[in-house]
Amino acid sequence: MAKKIAAFGEVMMRLEVPGYALLSQSSTLNYSFSGTGVNLASALARFGHTGYVVTTLPDNPLGDAARSYLQKLGIDISLSSRGGRYIGSYFLENGFGARASRVTYTNRLESSFNTAKADRYNFRALADIVDVVAFCGITLAMNDTVRKQMKQLAAAVKQRGGIVVFDCNYRPSLWGEGGYGLAKEHYEDMLHLADIVMMNEKDALYVLGMQSEATERKEQLTELIPQVAATYRIAAIAGTQRTIHPDNTHTLLGYLYKAQSFAFSEVCKFAVYDRIGAGDAFTSGTVHGELEQWEAADTIAFATAAGMLAHTIAGDTPMSTVQDIRQAMKQSVNDVER
Amino acid sequence: MAKKIAAFGEVMMRLEVPGYALLSQSSTLNYSFSGTGVNLASALARFGHTGYVVTTLPDNPLGDAARSYLQKLGIDISLSSRGGRYIGSYFLENGFGARASRVTYTNRLESSFNTAKADRYNFRALADIVDVVAFCGITLAMNDTVRKQMKQLAAAVKQRGGIVVFDCNYRPSLWGEGGYGLAKEHYEDMLHLADIVMMNEKDALYVLGMQSEATERKEQLTELIPQVAATYRIAAIAGTQRTIHPDNTHTLLGYLYKAQSFAFSEVCKFAVYDRIGAGDAFTSGTVHGELEQWEAADTIAFATAAGMLAHTIAGDTPMSTVQDIRQAMKQSVNDVER
Amino acid sequence: MAKKIAAFGEVMMRLEVPGYALLSQSSTLNYSFSGTGVNLASALARFGHTGYVVTTLPDNPLGDAARSYLQKLGIDISLSSRGGRYIGSYFLENGFGARASRVTYTNRLESSFNTAKADRYNFRALADIVDVVAFCGITLAMNDTVRKQMKQLAAAVKQRGGIVVFDCNYRPSLWGEGGYGLAKEHYEDMLHLADIVMMNEKDALYVLGMQSEATERKEQLTELIPQVAATYRIAAIAGTQRTIHPDNTHTLLGYLYKAQSFAFSEVCKFAVYDRIGAGDAFTSGTVHGELEQWEAADTIAFATAAGMLAHTIAGDTPMSTVQDIRQAMKQSVNDVER
Amino acid sequence: MAKKIAAFGEVMMRLEVPGYALLSQSSTLNYSFSGTGVNLASALARFGHTGYVVTTLPDNPLGDAARSYLQKLGIDISLSSRGGRYIGSYFLENGFGARASRVTYTNRLESSFNTAKADRYNFRALADIVDVVAFCGITLAMNDTVRKQMKQLAAAVKQRGGIVVFDCNYRPSLWGEGGYGLAKEHYEDMLHLADIVMMNEKDALYVLGMQSEATERKEQLTELIPQVAATYRIAAIAGTQRTIHPDNTHTLLGYLYKAQSFAFSEVCKFAVYDRIGAGDAFTSGTVHGELEQWEAADTIAFATAAGMLAHTIAGDTPMSTVQDIRQAMKQSVNDVER
Amino acid sequence: MAKKIAAFGEVMMRLEVPGYALLSQSSTLNYSFSGTGVNLASALARFGHTGYVVTTLPDNPLGDAARSYLQKLGIDISLSSRGGRYIGSYFLENGFGARASRVTYTNRLESSFNTAKADRYNFRALADIVDVVAFCGITLAMNDTVRKQMKQLAAAVKQRGGIVVFDCNYRPSLWGEGGYGLAKEHYEDMLHLADIVMMNEKDALYVLGMQSEATERKEQLTELIPQVAATYRIAAIAGTQRTIHPDNTHTLLGYLYKAQSFAFSEVCKFAVYDRIGAGDAFTSGTVHGELEQWEAADTIAFATAAGMLAHTIAGDTPMSTVQDIRQAMKQSVNDVER
Amino acid sequence: MAKKIAAFGEVMMRLEVPGYALLSQSSTLNYSFSGTGVNLASALARFGHTGYVVTTLPDNPLGDAARSYLQKLGIDISLSSRGGRYIGSYFLENGFGARASRVTYTNRLESSFNTAKADRYNFRALADIVDVVAFCGITLAMNDTVRKQMKQLAAAVKQRGGIVVFDCNYRPSLWGEGGYGLAKEHYEDMLHLADIVMMNEKDALYVLGMQSEATERKEQLTELIPQVAATYRIAAIAGTQRTIHPDNTHTLLGYLYKAQSFAFSEVCKFAVYDRIGAGDAFTSGTVHGELEQWEAADTIAFATAAGMLAHTIAGDTPMSTVQDIRQAMKQSVNDVER
Repeated sequence: MAKKIAAFGEVMMRLEVPGYALLSQSSTLNYSFSGTGVNLASALARFGHTGYVVTTLPDNPLGDAARSYLQKLGIDISLSSRGGRYIGSYFLENGFGARASRVTYTNRLESSFNTAKADRYNFRALADIVDVVAFCGITLAMNDTVRKQMKQLAAAVKQRGGIVVFDCNYRPSLWGEGGYGLAKEHYEDMLHLADIVMMNEKDALYVLGMQSEATERKEQLTELIPQVAATYRIAAIAGTQRTIHPDNTHTLLGYLYKAQSFAFSEVCKFAVYDRIGAGDAFTSGTVHGELEQWEAADTIAFATAAGMLAHTIAGDTPMSTVQDIRQAMKQSVNDVER
Repeated sequence: MAKKIAAFGEVMMRLEVPGYALLSQSSTLNYSFSGTGVNLASALARFGHTGYVVTTLPDNPLGDAARSYLQKLGIDISLSSRGGRYIGSYFLENGFGARASRVTYTNRLESSFNTAKADRYNFRALADIVDVVAFCGITLAMNDTVRKQMKQLAAAVKQRGGIVVFDCNYRPSLWGEGGYGLAKEHYEDMLHLADIVMMNEKDALYVLGMQSEATERKEQLTELIPQVAATYRIAAIAGTQRTIHPDNTHTLLGYLYKAQSFAFSEVCKFAVYDRIGAGDAFTSGTVHGELEQWEAADTIAFATAAGMLAHTIAGDTPMSTVQDIRQAMKQSVNDVER
Repeated sequence: MAKKIAAFGEVMMRLEVPGYALLSQSSTLNYSFSGTGVNLASALARFGHTGYVVTTLPDNPLGDAARSYLQKLGIDISLSSRGGRYIGSYFLENGFGARASRVTYTNRLESSFNTAKADRYNFRALADIVDVVAFCGITLAMNDTVRKQMKQLAAAVKQRGGIVVFDCNYRPSLWGEGGYGLAKEHYEDMLHLADIVMMNEKDALYVLGMQSEATERKEQLTELIPQVAATYRIAAIAGTQRTIHPDNTHTLLGYLYKAQSFAFSEVCKFAVYDRIGAGDAFTSGTVHGELEQWEAADTIAFATAAGMLAHTIAGDTPMSTVQDIRQAMKQSVNDVER
Repeated sequence: MAKKIAAFGEVMMRLEVPGYALLSQSSTLNYSFSGTGVNLASALARFGHTGYVVTTLPDNPLGDAARSYLQKLGIDISLSSRGGRYIGSYFLENGFGARASRVTYTNRLESSFNTAKADRYNFRALADIVDVVAFCGITLAMNDTVRKQMKQLAAAVKQRGGIVVFDCNYRPSLWGEGGYGLAKEHYEDMLHLADIVMMNEKDALYVLGMQSEATERKEQLTELIPQVAATYRIAAIAGTQRTIHPDNTHTLLGYLYKAQSFAFSEVCKFAVYDRIGAGDAFTSGTVHGELEQWEAADTIAFATAAGMLAHTIAGDTPMSTVQDIRQAMKQSVNDVER
Repeated sequence: MAKKIAAFGEVMMRLEVPGYALLSQSSTLNYSFSGTGVNLASALARFGHTGYVVTTLPDNPLGDAARSYLQKLGIDISLSSRGGRYIGSYFLENGFGARASRVTYTNRLESSFNTAKADRYNFRALADIVDVVAFCGITLAMNDTVRKQMKQLAAAVKQRGGIVVFDCNYRPSLWGEGGYGLAKEHYEDMLHLADIVMMNEKDALYVLGMQSEATERKEQLTELIPQVAATYRIAAIAGTQRTIHPDNTHTLLGYLYKAQSFAFSEVCKFAVYDRIGAGDAFTSGTVHGELEQWEAADTIAFATAAGMLAHTIAGDTPMSTVQDIRQAMKQSVNDVER
Repeated sequence: MAKKIAAFGEVMMRLEVPGYALLSQSSTLNYSFSGTGVNLASALARFGHTGYVVTTLPDNPLGDAARSYLQKLGIDISLSSRGGRYIGSYFLENGFGARASRVTYTNRLESSFNTAKADRYNFRALADIVDVVAFCGITLAMNDTVRKQMKQLAAAVKQRGGIVVFDCNYRPSLWGEGGYGLAKEHYEDMLHLADIVMMNEKDALYVLGMQSEATERKEQLTELIPQVAATYRIAAIAGTQRTIHPDNTHTLLGYLYKAQSFAFSEVCKFAVYDRIGAGDAFTSGTVHGELEQWEAADTIAFATAAGMLAHTIAGDTPMSTVQDIRQAMKQSVNDVER
């Protein structure tokens, strides 16, 4: 059944050098608007839900362009506000084979979203509207006001009986010198509020500071994730383990832990066209499966296929329908569809 | 020796989303004009023959553009006519890895070619001019008038001692509910008229409704194709067996059956850039080898290499010369040619 | 006060040759989605209203792309449906100076909109939702089913106390041999239902077959429009008189007739970048002024400036805000705004 | 009645910086293939004649591309040959307003055409095929072998009763230090052989070294051209007088002198999009009118309109049909044609 | 004689929507790097001087790209430093006719240049190297540290006998609420230090708060500028009076006041392609004329022509050589240069 | 420690068909300026040295564009001169998989560099400035004047105590019929002058005419290179052995021979984006390691990684910093860097 799902977070302008050139070689950029919240809301809208983004955008031509773009992605922007002066943005130089992609951020700390006053949003009103609210660790890294807003909104939705989704998504460069020490407390606050969490064993080890005797990644996972679920009373935890190969292919293994039991996807290996945002496609698949109350094995297979397909799509934002993903789950490649 | 070769069929406008974007992501299209007949006539012109397309194009700027494009490809358009109102067209979204390419047709049934009156063409006059005439199963799927035109032209050329080429090329979506049942009769009519036929075991099994105990594709082929040749008195039958791999590579095995004997190409595996139209390159190689009276083994090696190279060429239409294909038959990849 | 405004009509795919090349010179197209209804709904949404398009789009990647595009334009697509097989489209070659622009249509008669069954839409339900419904003469030219749908929807809205807008917009090529004789009856039906009408003296003379002794265009206008308003009991009639100059500039004079009195805009002359869709901007300005109950002189100045600005915007669809138009009404050109 | 018309001359590769950037600002070029002969043969083919180019192109990918392009333009390339090593080319930086366009040539003296041996072409055979042969002063400036070829071909066609067209087209930079002194003799040889000549008073004064008391250009023209016609026994002489305005518009006056009488076009002023090659459109109009035996007034009006339209077309080569030109001769600008 | 000329100021990234689309319509941007200092240093380098920019750029891929771009423009970057985190940038939407261009800035106050510590530069060392240093009012609007740096550098160069250039260039949006009141003091400090100043009567009236009885712009100019020169002991003051016309043309009148006497350029009217940065071309012409010790009339004619030509060049930065400008001063438009 | 390094050679204009189209399919080219000398000087500048190109460029817009481009690459152009009339250029059609890339040269023998008079350069003065001078076998193939200039410059630098680098780089098509026989003498002259040489066993066998009993490439290398070093008294010889795979990947093995001992890189296999110029990156790595007096093993690992990375960079010219290469030497592929 279609739900109302809001994602709280920043809308970023992506400025991508076309092809495989560097910023110092090219003179053209392709731009679009994305962000974890945008990607998730759009993906879930494509699955039949109503997807909102709760954010703040400047009241200038860049803000206008961002709003148009979000609407194009099928996002309902009626819960997003205007204000502040700047939009966060990043420049992307696509890597090739042995050369990694490079992202250069502009000053996102001064963005409309990150400078919005504490009382910019009416979280009670929001909580009355939405069934699900989603957050991610990138937003948590921004500043104290934003962190407070996240926790208030999560609490308000939880109180009204809604579902809280949290994607751990720890980015070292964003936490600066404070690092894990600074982050841990805020992650714990969010985990206590969350019903569905995206993470893997690295988050448990580094962000939460847990210990494991195991040396193999999958063993660490199966040891630590049940402890996390128990400690923070999380209904469902999901995530992926990724391996990057030197020939532009990646391997992905998805897992879903719920009701004291793990479900794993098959290990899939695939060619990668645009890696950015693929994690949000995995999240969208997990959330959709949970909302539809699918079997855990089906949900994790769906989420992993959604993640895989997102690597074949230009841009940050997933574009696949449920039917596209179901087709990809069959794991045979088709000839041209005509 | 250079021959005059006419291909009867529709000219399609190809509207391709650049790169790997979807129609709902992009705002630009690359366009060109192709079709089985166009591809075949152009490829054979590049081999030194005179290639004609017998078709009808609207007398408007789209028809002008199509005619210019055909001339650019080296096709002689003096046997094509103007009339009707529309040009058939299709939109192409390129797939990547696990995501298949997608083709969306516009209303081709209303095209100038498909609405041309029964007496639009003077088949007697055409038969006086050409040495070879070529048809394909896509055209056969259009409507009764077109089917009648095909058979009349084939009969006229055959009667004048010319060669009739027929590529089975069955497309399920074009035959609609009638399916194989509707198609069989027309395929049989064409096979009775044809001297050189493109098909594989799937056409024998599904279109002609033949039976085989064998379960392996190559066994089915060697069992069924000789029966087809005998039944319809076909001088030469050729075709390919294709395997699609998940990493953007395909494997191709070509065969040629004539004079009660099979010749097979080596199995070749290669990276694919543009899959559409590659089958027509294989046909062109087969027809050229037959016209040049090459050894069967040489013809099928040439045809298969022509098909392989067509997968590395942008657009539907083969662009390789005899020399290019001979070079590719050596199966070692060169450094930059300079 | 913000109203709910629905436009009934076809969504067209615009396929534009970039720059000033011809279809037979280029290999690239820019595409977008527009139509009188799209342009009007989008323009009014930009003025603060809710703009709907009531239409039918195919359930394929082209329909997906069209829906995304409409959302990007700020249109609410919840009243549009999916079905049928094709989207109407046209190719645009931009003229330059002495060379006129050229539009080539594909088969729009087979489009999803034009083949939608008589009972595709629930007009009662629509009439309960919207405050205003808009139609145009292009839609009226399509076929009997569409004409019947138009009149039913107009009647339903009128009955519920809503406002009916009708833009005469007679296109000779669409009415074929029937011409004015065929059209008159249907235009009269729509005029009887309409509250706000876009037309000028040419529509009165040719479509309605009225007579005038006057030879000068403005005199004909002031003689005939009051008769039209009286005959069909139309509250407000507006329109423009356009002159095209050889140096890419146009002159526009706007008028609004209501309450037995004419208001005229100043005559404005301006450079033209993209002429298509500019008439819809004028309509949107008139409708907005009427809904806001502005003075007639203010409404017509606003509508004419909206029309003028639309000539400076790429694409069919107006992009100006109320503030942009108010700025343009001051009729002095600014230096760079920074 | 359709004629066979051959133009003798070099095919040039045009490498144009897109928009209005300089070579040191941009990183992209648009390329096409043109030349006076190409432009003339293509324009006349569009009027219904068969247009040939007699030239030599290298047997490499550039030569292949040039041949494809000529075919796309509707030119019959069966009279052009392959050989030599290079194609002539030029770089074009488009001017804007007060900044003139700039053309930079590569080494055209080493081109396949300019290094073709004296006996490369079989002029007798050519003369048997064609009804008309055309030359221009640019070709005459190349070298002695080329000049000899021009005169031999002109003489052969004349001898067989064909028509010789010569466009004086004097380019100072091509004659180097020799200048008018070097050129005069060769111009006189060509004028003696020509039936239809393109020139104006400046050619008479500077190239032929004639004298005039008059100071006004039109007076000089009417004084000198009859003398030229008489001296060299030329049936028809035509040309234009051009004025360039600072706002991207030009003024053109066309004249045709034949049978001891002048016909003048109206003076037309028009916006200019691409100036290069427009003179060849004027020539094509004059030649077509003469071949069709139109009234002189009609021919010159047609030729001047053809020239005007060519300024609105991207690229060097005219793209207008007889119908387009007849439409433009009415001298009112149309709204969008749809 | 070639001088060493340093411009102190920020390097801005220009992100331009191609053609005439809005940010909410397009998906592509062209980028380049400019700024008043960049434009001036590059223009003077093109005149034969050594042009430096004294600035600070981030040590990231954007800073790399900016440095490459400055080198491409012929600027010597050996006096510019790396540091800080961000590059200032602005988005440009090109206007057309009645629609003005629109510039949207990102957060330039946080740029590397504007956050550079007071002691980032060694002004003594700089003063030993350069002959001339140039500043502008945009930089003066940034913050106190930057203002202090400007004055220190100006004083250091003046003390070493160098020449100080100051372009008043008042931008209201940059001074915020403080406005003229805040600016005046700093302008006066710079005027006291400057030898060559760019301004017109508006700067005198609004920034310096001077009074004039005259109502006509030129009268105000001739009344006020001599007072400014006397008050601040400025050797040469130059500037322009601009009129913007509704048809994409501007009119420019240049003046130069020195040695108690005015020299005026002719009034020139010209088509405008890219208005941004044209003022810097005028400054470069004035400075060059003064350094070359030309007659005042010649200098102002040259500077005004330099300014005019810059309006015909894509991008902010002038690209004309002395020869190009001398050619434009003849004020007749050329045909294609070939 | 930063050195002054000059490369003597031609600057070539690269005209690349975008994507994988052929010249006869496309209408657009990307252009840039490169050449062995450009690539080497730029790469070494990026490593912190001062990189000069000693060359001659025409004094026209193409020469201007080339000089701007070289500056953009960070090259010091103060040792390059203007003169002659043409710039050498080549057209590149990118291959894909089984289809090799194709390079078509224009007439480079007439280029400014190749027609520069014997005394164009002041080699004594150059030798006073630079620490290192580099040459390659392509330049050696041009003509006698150029060969003489090479040897004079090498001798002058050697005499002043500088280092001479020579990359053998034998291109059969450039030596024409003379072939190895013609080349040998000149190669020997350069080898006698060189301190650091790039070559592999093929150069020894074919250009120098040496003999080897070994059949395996690496054995031939270890047998012949020490002989070359001894014969010509070369301090360091380095090179690569390359294998090209059918799936767009290459394998590279680098070696460095100095002080009677070989150092080998690991064999690395990697995806190839742009193969041209990658050899120059290897040279730059070798030269840098030698100048920095690194261990041989480190130098060859660095040089090979530099070569590998250059295959992932668009265009001929390497763009990697020391840090980029050190990162790639770790041989694990990173996720997006952000």
